[in-house]
Order: sequence, then structure tokens, then C-alpha cells
Amino acid sequence: MVYFDNSATTPLCESSLSEMKAAVDEFWGNPSSLHEKGLEAELYLEKARKMSSDCLCCAPDEIIFTSGGTQGNNIAILGSAFAGEKKGKTLITTKIEHPSVLRSFEFLENRGFNVKYISVDSFGRVDLNELENALNDDVVFVSVMFVNNELGTIQPVGEISRLIRKRAKKALFHSDMVQAFGKMRTDVNRLGVDIATLSGHKIHAPKGAGVLFVKKGTKLLSPSLGGGQEKGIRSGTQPMPSIAGLYGAMKEINITESAEKVKKINSFLRDAVSGIEGAFINSPSDALPYVLNVSFPGYPSEVLLNYLSERKIYVSSGSACAKGKKSEILTAADLSSERINSSIRLSFSRYNTIDEARAFVEAINAAMKDIKKSR
Amino acid sequence: MVYFDNSATTPLCESSLSEMKAAVDEFWGNPSSLHEKGLEAELYLEKARKMSSDCLCCAPDEIIFTSGGTQGNNIAILGSAFAGEKKGKTLITTKIEHPSVLRSFEFLENRGFNVKYISVDSFGRVDLNELENALNDDVVFVSVMFVNNELGTIQPVGEISRLIRKRAKKALFHSDMVQAFGKMRTDVNRLGVDIATLSGHKIHAPKGAGVLFVKKGTKLLSPSLGGGQEKGIRSGTQPMPSIAGLYGAMKEINITESAEKVKKINSFLRDAVSGIEGAFINSPSDALPYVLNVSFPGYPSEVLLNYLSERKIYVSSGSACAKGKKSEILTAADLSSERINSSIRLSFSRYNTIDEARAFVEAINAAMKDIKKSR
Repeated sequence: MVYFDNSATTPLCESSLSEMKAAVDEFWGNPSSLHEKGLEAELYLEKARKMSSDCLCCAPDEIIFTSGGTQGNNIAILGSAFAGEKKGKTLITTKIEHPSVLRSFEFLENRGFNVKYISVDSFGRVDLNELENALNDDVVFVSVMFVNNELGTIQPVGEISRLIRKRAKKALFHSDMVQAFGKMRTDVNRLGVDIATLSGHKIHAPKGAGVLFVKKGTKLLSPSLGGGQEKGIRSGTQPMPSIAGLYGAMKEINITESAEKVKKINSFLRDAVSGIEGAFINSPSDALPYVLNVSFPGYPSEVLLNYLSERKIYVSSGSACAKGKKSEILTAADLSSERINSSIRLSFSRYNTIDEARAFVEAINAAMKDIKKSR
Repeated sequence: MVYFDNSATTPLCESSLSEMKAAVDEFWGNPSSLHEKGLEAELYLEKARKMSSDCLCCAPDEIIFTSGGTQGNNIAILGSAFAGEKKGKTLITTKIEHPSVLRSFEFLENRGFNVKYISVDSFGRVDLNELENALNDDVVFVSVMFVNNELGTIQPVGEISRLIRKRAKKALFHSDMVQAFGKMRTDVNRLGVDIATLSGHKIHAPKGAGVLFVKKGTKLLSPSLGGGQEKGIRSGTQPMPSIAGLYGAMKEINITESAEKVKKINSFLRDAVSGIEGAFINSPSDALPYVLNVSFPGYPSEVLLNYLSERKIYVSSGSACAKGKKSEILTAADLSSERINSSIRLSFSRYNTIDEARAFVEAINAAMKDIKKSR
């Protein structure tokens, strides 16, 4: 099996599995319970919180456990907009955000907020001039992702933060860091964000847990309502086994070592695809090496994907969350229909090898011989 | 250890553990991915969905997987109110709902909705006359829980449904069935509800997954926004390991057999507590036998709880979600402060024994000797 779909989800690492086991065997109490069994669970949860804050270079009480990236983004966006409503109703984001961000903004547009969507260039880079011109004192919230999920494009989050602080003093700044976390530095204070979203299952933790960084003093009116767990920002009993797995996965993060491995695979594939006549590389050369988006005009994504899947090579067309629909992100990047309809996203992890990359190249060459070109 | 706090959370059963293992070892793909690894996960998810629908006597496509009871209640209440807003803004619930329900209604009150909170008697039984009088054509949504989490009181959901259908034809009817599920019949169609909330971790599944029953044709404007998973009602990658655990736990449900065991423990404790001078039994005699709420006036709940916890007997004061705050539910039931402040909730599972109940009685008698009465 060649699994090149690590931006969709990942298999669990050893340390994630062993912490999950501890959580279900031993720390199964409800961390809100006042007795010993609850306290045990609470102490375990606080260990995971401390580890999360170390990974983000923030304080433990700035860590909110969620059920994943989507819930994190929903809470960040709706919670900020509702809390800031009396100060203003102008919000800014970009055209290439994850569906959990775009759909949240659309929900707010339908409820009386004004949303400005900033354009991107053909590599998915946010137009900083357009952003700068859109910033003013009416703006109460800005959301720009750190690494794009389909292209791997890295946005200059630090620079964007400085623009916001200068020109939109009332605004909170949120960044969806789901694809960046564990793969590059995500020092939230140095980057200057107020809120950041992470997810566990993109870094070899189980599906069902994520982290929201919420800077001390940031006020949210969260739509996650109930018992007031996680400082009232994410109510509900914490998803302990998945948080435990995330804690385990965080222990194994080694940004430099993993990036070196992945860079070699990425370079190998970039060179190989460049040599294929008619192929395009859609990711910019300074993208995060974990993602490589390519197009083979004339060969529809789904056909390639199925051809590869039958050979146990797993890649994606667009993001898993879009499930076969035309990529909103590549459309925003204004690529030709031919490139969009034939695009394939390869996404890597530290467990991938050059041999797997070779197998992919062989298979794609075979595919182009075997599949009748659609034109 | 004597664990009498099963309404807060439960340890995992064997079958739950083994399904979780399958989910992390084998079915770790993203069910939205279009390749083979995604399809495997999707097929597994559909097996869990079929099992859930069998448990609720509904169709598989009426099952929405959530991250738990709180998210389920949030989606049901906010989603129904937002979807029905144009038809009307009058909502009805009761004074003894779970915090995830009460806080959701308060959120809506702050956003222009009118909410009527129906009273209860001293045993937490909803006042059906008051409810009937409150129902009219302006009402768009009603939420009444099936089994109360602190008292075990069973509400006549079927009868309430008939009242609603007669007097509030536009209204959707939601019931929080978290404490009922797996412990009594929850045949959603016979009960006549449009939406019902379940949670996994109260029935020996892991924390982090739940189910929302949404009757075919019911329109929700869900605040869970993103990739459109779960029919767009709960976006976000499904929390597969926890759903797998829930699937496993559902396989082991045996309502009759478990109830018989638990009834014996409940009766034993009822008799024993009745014999303690000054003690009160707060749960009605026809409550679900899984919950027994008692008071020992003069002995503060927290002191008793700690005394018992030191002896490895785990009970709760109020619900875990309230974490030491004065019970909203017992306050709504209009019990005296003395009874509220000295209340203890015992909650059972099929794994409890009569010997454990005996140990509790011995310990509570010792506590009343050892602890200085606060009056």
C-alpha cells in the first residue's frame, strides 16, 4: 500500500495508540466528576493540555480541547462574530479556506454580517494588497489559514497579523493551522494570532479531537453550550480517548527530522512529474513539502484516483471534505477547468518512502498509457 | 472500588474496546476519501449507523453521528430554531433539562427568541397542564428530556408528543434521551419525536461520540458547518474510534437483563436509605432504576462525596456537568435548601452488585457517625 493522502487523515503512531489504551483502561473517569476517579482523568487531561501548550508556545490555560478542526473553526468564527457583534459586523477571510471556515462565514452572512473574501493568485497566495485595503476600524474578525489543505501554500500569517494590528485595531485574528501543525513551527504568539485551530487526526492521532488556542483575554460567545467545560468555550465531556491519542502523537512530533524525509519525497515527485508531458505542478515551490498538487490535463481526477486505488495507491482529488465536488480552492486560484478536473493531491507523512514515490510515478505513467485521454 | 456514578460516565465494555481496536488498526481511513482506504472506513461507519437505527427503530439515514450529547442537543435546538425562525420564534422546554439544553435556549433568548420553561413537581415531573396551555400555533419547537439525569424521573414523552401534535401543529419535538438510551425502550417513532439525542459514554462506549436521530424530512439549520458530512447536520470528519466503540457497546445492550440487575440494587438501597433517620429519597418510585437521588440533611454533599471517595466509593453530587454548583434541577423541583445541599446521586450499571450497595450503606452509616453534622 502507498498512502499519499495524509492531509485527509493518517494512521495512528505507536505513542498515540498506547496513550489511547491508557485512557480507556485507566483514565476513563469523567474529568468533571469530583471524586478520585474523576480527578485521575482530570490530571491526565491537564498533562495533555500542558503538552499542547508546549507545542504552541503558549500557556496551558490558553488550550481548549475540541472534537476536531471543524468544531474548532466553527467555534472560533461564530464565537468571535457573536461576541464582537456590538462592536461591528464586518468580517474578513480568504477564498481558499477550508469548508468549515467558508460555510461558517456564509452562515454569518445570512444572519446580517458583512464578509469580505480576499482573492488569491494562481498558487493560492493571499493578495496582501487587497487584504490591506479591506482592513479598517469596522473589521472585528479576520481568518486566514496557515497552510492550504489542497495546495500546501503557506500564507504569511505573521505579516498578516502586523497588517491587522496596524489597520484594524478592534479585529481578532484567527488562523486555521490544521495542515501546519506538527509539520512546521506554530508559535502562536510569535505569529501574532488570537485564535488558532488544530486537529489531531492529521498528525497520526485518532479522529475526534483537536485543539483551539484562545489567547488569554479573548472573548468568545461560543455556540458550543452546556456544562461549561473547557472554560465554557467547548462544553461537553471531553473526548478523552482521542485527546489521549493526540497527546501521544504530540510526543512524537519532530518537525525537522520529518520535514527532511518528506522534502526528499516531494522533490523526487516534483522532478518526476515535471518530466511528464502536459503535466502541471499546482503547488508553489515554497509550499509546505507535505502537500504536492499536480494536474494531468485530459485525465479526469476520479479516473486517475480509481486507477491508482485499484493498485493500492491512495491519493485524493481535492480534499476529502469536498468528496468529489469541484475544488473551490483551485477555482479561486483561477486554474483552467482542465487543470482543476485533472488535479491530484499527494500528501505525505514521515512514514512514506522514496520507493513509494517511485511506485506512484510508475503507476501514473502506466495510467496515462492505459486510460484513454478524455479529449 | 464501588462505582455508582454511571450517569456521569462509564467504563468501556469488552465489545466497545474490541471495536475501537478495529477502528484504529484497520478502519483508520477518512470515510469521505474516495479511494479504497476511505471506502473501508465508510462501510464500517454504515455498519455502525445500521446498528444505531436498529436500536432506535428508525431508518439508517435518520442517524447522524455527533461528538456526544452536548453537540447533539446544541445542533437539535439551535438548528431547529434557526430553521424555523421565519415560521415563529416561540420555543418551549422545561426547567429540569441538561445544561446543554438550558444554555442553548438561553443563547436563543439572547438572540430574539421567546422561551417558555415548564415547571415540574417535587419529583421532577413536568406539569402537563402548564405544557398544554403553553402549546399553540406560534410554537415552533419543544424540547423535553426522556429521563432526568439527576433524579431518574421518566417524562411521558409519548403523551407530550400527542399534546404537541394536537395543539402546536408547526412545532418540532426534540427529546434528550441520553440517560434513557440502552436502559429502556427508545422507539423514536412510537414515542413520536422528530429529533432525539443519544450519547455513547453513558452506555460503556468511549467519550467522544453520540447519535442524533433526525426524522426524515426534518429541516435543521445546523451550527455545525463545513464539509457537509452526516447530511450536512454534523460536519467534520466522523470521530471513528469513538463511533466504533459506540457500535460495540450497542451490540451488548440487553435492556431487560440489565434492568433486572439494576432494579435489585436500587430496591436494596431504597430500603436501606429509608431506614436512615432524617434521610430523603428524592427520586420518584417509578423513576428509571439506574438513578437514585437521596439526601442526608445536615451532611453537605461535598463532604459525603469526599468521605466516600477516600473509601473508593464514587458517587456524585448533582451531575458531573454542574461540577459542584447548586443543582438547577433540584432547585426547580423546589426541594428545601437542606435537601439540595445534602443530595447524593447514585447511578448504576449492569456491572454493579448488591455487595457494592452494601458497602455503600455501611460507608454512609459510618460517615454519619464520623462527620459532624453541620447544623
